[in-house]
Amino acid sequence: MTVKFGLLGAGRIGKVHARAIRSDANAELVAVADAIPAAAESLARDYGCDIRTIDQIEQSSDIDAVVICTPTDTHADLIERFARAGKAVFCEKPVDLSVQRVQDCLKVVKDTGATLMVGFNRRFDPDFMAVKAAIDEGHIGDVEMVTISSRDPGAPPADYIKRSGGIFRDMTIHDFDMARWLLGEEPETVVAQASVLTDPEIGTLGDFDSVNVILRTASGRQAVITNSRRATYGYDQRIEVLGSKGAVSAENMREANIEVATEQGFTRPPLLNFFMTRYIAAYANEIAGFIRAVNSKGVTPTTGEDGLQALALADAALKSVQEGRAVKVSEILG
Amino acid sequence: MTVKFGLLGAGRIGKVHARAIRSDANAELVAVADAIPAAAESLARDYGCDIRTIDQIEQSSDIDAVVICTPTDTHADLIERFARAGKAVFCEKPVDLSVQRVQDCLKVVKDTGATLMVGFNRRFDPDFMAVKAAIDEGHIGDVEMVTISSRDPGAPPADYIKRSGGIFRDMTIHDFDMARWLLGEEPETVVAQASVLTDPEIGTLGDFDSVNVILRTASGRQAVITNSRRATYGYDQRIEVLGSKGAVSAENMREANIEVATEQGFTRPPLLNFFMTRYIAAYANEIAGFIRAVNSKGVTPTTGEDGLQALALADAALKSVQEGRAVKVSEILG
Amino acid sequence: MTVKFGLLGAGRIGKVHARAIRSDANAELVAVADAIPAAAESLARDYGCDIRTIDQIEQSSDIDAVVICTPTDTHADLIERFARAGKAVFCEKPVDLSVQRVQDCLKVVKDTGATLMVGFNRRFDPDFMAVKAAIDEGHIGDVEMVTISSRDPGAPPADYIKRSGGIFRDMTIHDFDMARWLLGEEPETVVAQASVLTDPEIGTLGDFDSVNVILRTASGRQAVITNSRRATYGYDQRIEVLGSKGAVSAENMREANIEVATEQGFTRPPLLNFFMTRYIAAYANEIAGFIRAVNSKGVTPTTGEDGLQALALADAALKSVQEGRAVKVSEILG
Amino acid sequence: MTVKFGLLGAGRIGKVHARAIRSDANAELVAVADAIPAAAESLARDYGCDIRTIDQIEQSSDIDAVVICTPTDTHADLIERFARAGKAVFCEKPVDLSVQRVQDCLKVVKDTGATLMVGFNRRFDPDFMAVKAAIDEGHIGDVEMVTISSRDPGAPPADYIKRSGGIFRDMTIHDFDMARWLLGEEPETVVAQASVLTDPEIGTLGDFDSVNVILRTASGRQAVITNSRRATYGYDQRIEVLGSKGAVSAENMREANIEVATEQGFTRPPLLNFFMTRYIAAYANEIAGFIRAVNSKGVTPTTGEDGLQALALADAALKSVQEGRAVKVSEILG
Repeated sequence: MTVKFGLLGAGRIGKVHARAIRSDANAELVAVADAIPAAAESLARDYGCDIRTIDQIEQSSDIDAVVICTPTDTHADLIERFARAGKAVFCEKPVDLSVQRVQDCLKVVKDTGATLMVGFNRRFDPDFMAVKAAIDEGHIGDVEMVTISSRDPGAPPADYIKRSGGIFRDMTIHDFDMARWLLGEEPETVVAQASVLTDPEIGTLGDFDSVNVILRTASGRQAVITNSRRATYGYDQRIEVLGSKGAVSAENMREANIEVATEQGFTRPPLLNFFMTRYIAAYANEIAGFIRAVNSKGVTPTTGEDGLQALALADAALKSVQEGRAVKVSEILG
Repeated sequence: MTVKFGLLGAGRIGKVHARAIRSDANAELVAVADAIPAAAESLARDYGCDIRTIDQIEQSSDIDAVVICTPTDTHADLIERFARAGKAVFCEKPVDLSVQRVQDCLKVVKDTGATLMVGFNRRFDPDFMAVKAAIDEGHIGDVEMVTISSRDPGAPPADYIKRSGGIFRDMTIHDFDMARWLLGEEPETVVAQASVLTDPEIGTLGDFDSVNVILRTASGRQAVITNSRRATYGYDQRIEVLGSKGAVSAENMREANIEVATEQGFTRPPLLNFFMTRYIAAYANEIAGFIRAVNSKGVTPTTGEDGLQALALADAALKSVQEGRAVKVSEILG
Repeated sequence: MTVKFGLLGAGRIGKVHARAIRSDANAELVAVADAIPAAAESLARDYGCDIRTIDQIEQSSDIDAVVICTPTDTHADLIERFARAGKAVFCEKPVDLSVQRVQDCLKVVKDTGATLMVGFNRRFDPDFMAVKAAIDEGHIGDVEMVTISSRDPGAPPADYIKRSGGIFRDMTIHDFDMARWLLGEEPETVVAQASVLTDPEIGTLGDFDSVNVILRTASGRQAVITNSRRATYGYDQRIEVLGSKGAVSAENMREANIEVATEQGFTRPPLLNFFMTRYIAAYANEIAGFIRAVNSKGVTPTTGEDGLQALALADAALKSVQEGRAVKVSEILG
Repeated sequence: MTVKFGLLGAGRIGKVHARAIRSDANAELVAVADAIPAAAESLARDYGCDIRTIDQIEQSSDIDAVVICTPTDTHADLIERFARAGKAVFCEKPVDLSVQRVQDCLKVVKDTGATLMVGFNRRFDPDFMAVKAAIDEGHIGDVEMVTISSRDPGAPPADYIKRSGGIFRDMTIHDFDMARWLLGEEPETVVAQASVLTDPEIGTLGDFDSVNVILRTASGRQAVITNSRRATYGYDQRIEVLGSKGAVSAENMREANIEVATEQGFTRPPLLNFFMTRYIAAYANEIAGFIRAVNSKGVTPTTGEDGLQALALADAALKSVQEGRAVKVSEILG
């Protein structure tokens, strides 16, 4: 069955989802809404869909599901509203920057019985899925240690950082989700260190650009996350999992798989340096997973609970930095 | 301007081109023709186009260009016919298995002034394009030696081999084209060796499955091509170019870029093992290049002459094997 | 000038140093001492040197320098004794398991003006030296993050673990030294997490087998160390340094640089799985560095202070695990 | 039993063998002879051996074996002379540049029953041995295609080229030996192409600097050899073998296994660029193999026959270039 979509937000991530919907044989983009008319018009023209207001989409009987790509501070309200309207909801992470607000929102979702998927695109990357499959097929035995290196090519503008909730909630949150997924057991304790090394303005805004985090589960499994807002060589996204019988890792992606050899050495091109290019396949797989869940009335591959847990880890990491101690996730989730 | 396409042939390569046309913003697939009605119907349904006969397509004023994906022995006739009908023509290699027939056909194309592109998909592979760009930008100095390793995962069925014109005209022809492109100078002399190692039936059919060829240009540049019809580890497609200042190479593609480490060692997955998956981006770029040429009334990125030269090299290689000597390309082209 | 050596301890690490001394044109192995006569005899026969007691070596006027490879609990006493005897001293890490005892010992060394080198073999590995050179030559700009993955092929016997001082003082200590060397700034704060995952007996002995540590310097540079006592695929020793202009990393070493490709994928051999094989070049370079320092009466490339600082980081890491908080190195060094 | 050696020739390859003999527990270097007194003195001093004349070594009862490192035109005479004197003989390739002379010399060796090893160092390289072992253990099934890329960092001086016998007899001869070893079946037919691309002076001397050769055995197995006298990125030495069940390859060696990542890309150092450094382990293994053969009175791992066959392939390749045809090895060996 074709799932009919309304898209809320026509910005760059909105376009990524519009493209994913168009290329999926089981989906149709019916309408887009955006506060900026020109943005909505441009997207509607490129992807051949209607322009409607959010109110109209809420009341559209020809729309089954919405994709929320609006600013973060609108997410929780929109989730609640469309859950109540009986639409399936796909929302970009995070649900909200406040754990309490997320918990309240998820309660509404639960009460309405709505289908909610919170987007953690990396779980749908083909290479990372192959890593997970190798674990699930038993190739490395029991998981012991997860190592995640995640570095952006460069820091976002100050304006973005101000509203981002800080590096742990904005950037590391993806790695917290990956860690939970790969550990196969909920982290219990968090320690972290944070610095400002790439740009003093980030410090002025009260944020950090260079952080390391260690997560520990009840049984002693651990995950290490290392983040920087700057990697001159591109968008650096690596994972590695050590188990009792071996290890599995995923490598970075480059624009071209070539090598030039000269007197100076052997040089391969820098990494793909934009998250949309790097994760283009992941975004398509993610929407496909949502469509399957809607069609089968099943569980979405990533859930509101995943969004909550990742946010709680972010809050715990920040608290660990602020208080110089190991923080229990239970302190955050109360 | 949108180029409106008729597709001749709804087989597997026809579908590849249909998909490329659909995903190109400057192209529209108007109609498909196929001798087998079910094949035409299936493709028309999947890609939302009309079903017409070849005659109808020839006379359709709403069709600017055709893509010929019919059996090889129909190519030359169809090229001539659509050239005369004023359509731009994209034809899968080869134009014909006979050098004389190709020469006659190209004369018709020339006389009609038609746009003709002969498909050599590998030139449009992003990695191979990056190799060519590295050469053109001077990173390796003057080209001296080209090395091409090209191995299929497994031999095609006997029926296919019978009609294929033999390994040099069917498989090595792609490598001949790559060699010409990378050498930057026309090969003058060909020596080759050929064996049957993977399946005696191939020998019974008068063909080979394992060949090596050396090409030499007038100035002494050389290219080595090594082919096998069988590589258990996947579709093996590597190129390497040595120049006066260095070398550049392109690596194979895998399904996933992961590595599993155990007591037995470090293992990465086999190669992508199907040419359509391996060259999916190349096919899209190829059609895009054709569309640009049609729109600009310019030269196509690969031409009928390219088809002729590659075929002549194939004939020279076969003659070299048969006569145990170095063969000049001029002996073939007369 | 040839430096004449006495070797204290004829065990496996003693043999490594004997070989390094023999292969160095500026060194001569004069005598060996070992509590087990058979061990001393075997080494003396293989390397063509005398057998003497420790007392005799202390009084030998034909010996300039000693290499201490005896059990850890004898190191500090022997260092003091030979420093007082006017010999140059090379001692395997650690000087002692007690920070206080190390501090007392280093005071004696200082008072006698003796030359003391504490062995941290990894700094002399050619690949790691190339990493350091890349940093020092400015290729990656200012150092920001150091990542060290260090995993043993398997845990040592329980008997060894009992006397080892625990994983931080026995195994991670090498990584603490590498981190200090690569950070280029003294770590100030330590957080760590530790688990028992590979063998419950290790837990029974009060030790851990799986640890992660984050170090932070005053200016905010950070190092992450990840350790496991078990890696089925060999002796895993990787370093990576991120700087303001780029990153540099060193790869593992294998027995053979080959790859076998089959239907199952592409497989390279496991890693070299014994520290003496992995670091054979490092041990030779290390002794050569000591010889140069003795001959030039200069500073040794690694010092007693290096041994002290690495031990303090180990103690801080253990305290961090025990107390669930960030620990300052100054708390340890007092 | 310790094999006592006389070394004929104290040049750079003589030193390589002197070092290999010294580091072998089963060998002793007794004396060196060289026409240049200073060369003999220097080597004798460095390796602690006598200086004798060739006549004296021939008559020395305390010498079991000789290593011939004198100029090529003396090899055959010296082999015959020392074979008659009852010494075991290790001779650097080639025995002679004339097939007839080699055949005559091998007849003398056969008649005297002497032990003769002709040095083909590459067979003793640990990585290439691992490739051979993978084949012998059946990992790739039946051998079908061997691909050898062998490029020198730069051409030797004109004086050397004049006396070298040409690129096929001087450089490719190593690859011919490797091809025979890996094919596991004697090549029957040779085709080759040759050019002068790196330096016109090489052409003036009647030689080539860029050659490609295809070898074919009776059963159809093939080997491709690609050679250049210039590779700016170092000493390029790769082999790859395709079999019915898979493939195995060996990679190049670098000075350091590091990678620097910057905005410009990911760069690894150039290759080791000197054959003595690249093959240091091979030379040691080679002499060890000779010593084992002498001690066991067994067959040497490489023989005079190996030298003859490789030379015949070189002559066949040259004839193929000169006559523009496939040449049978039987035409050369008569």
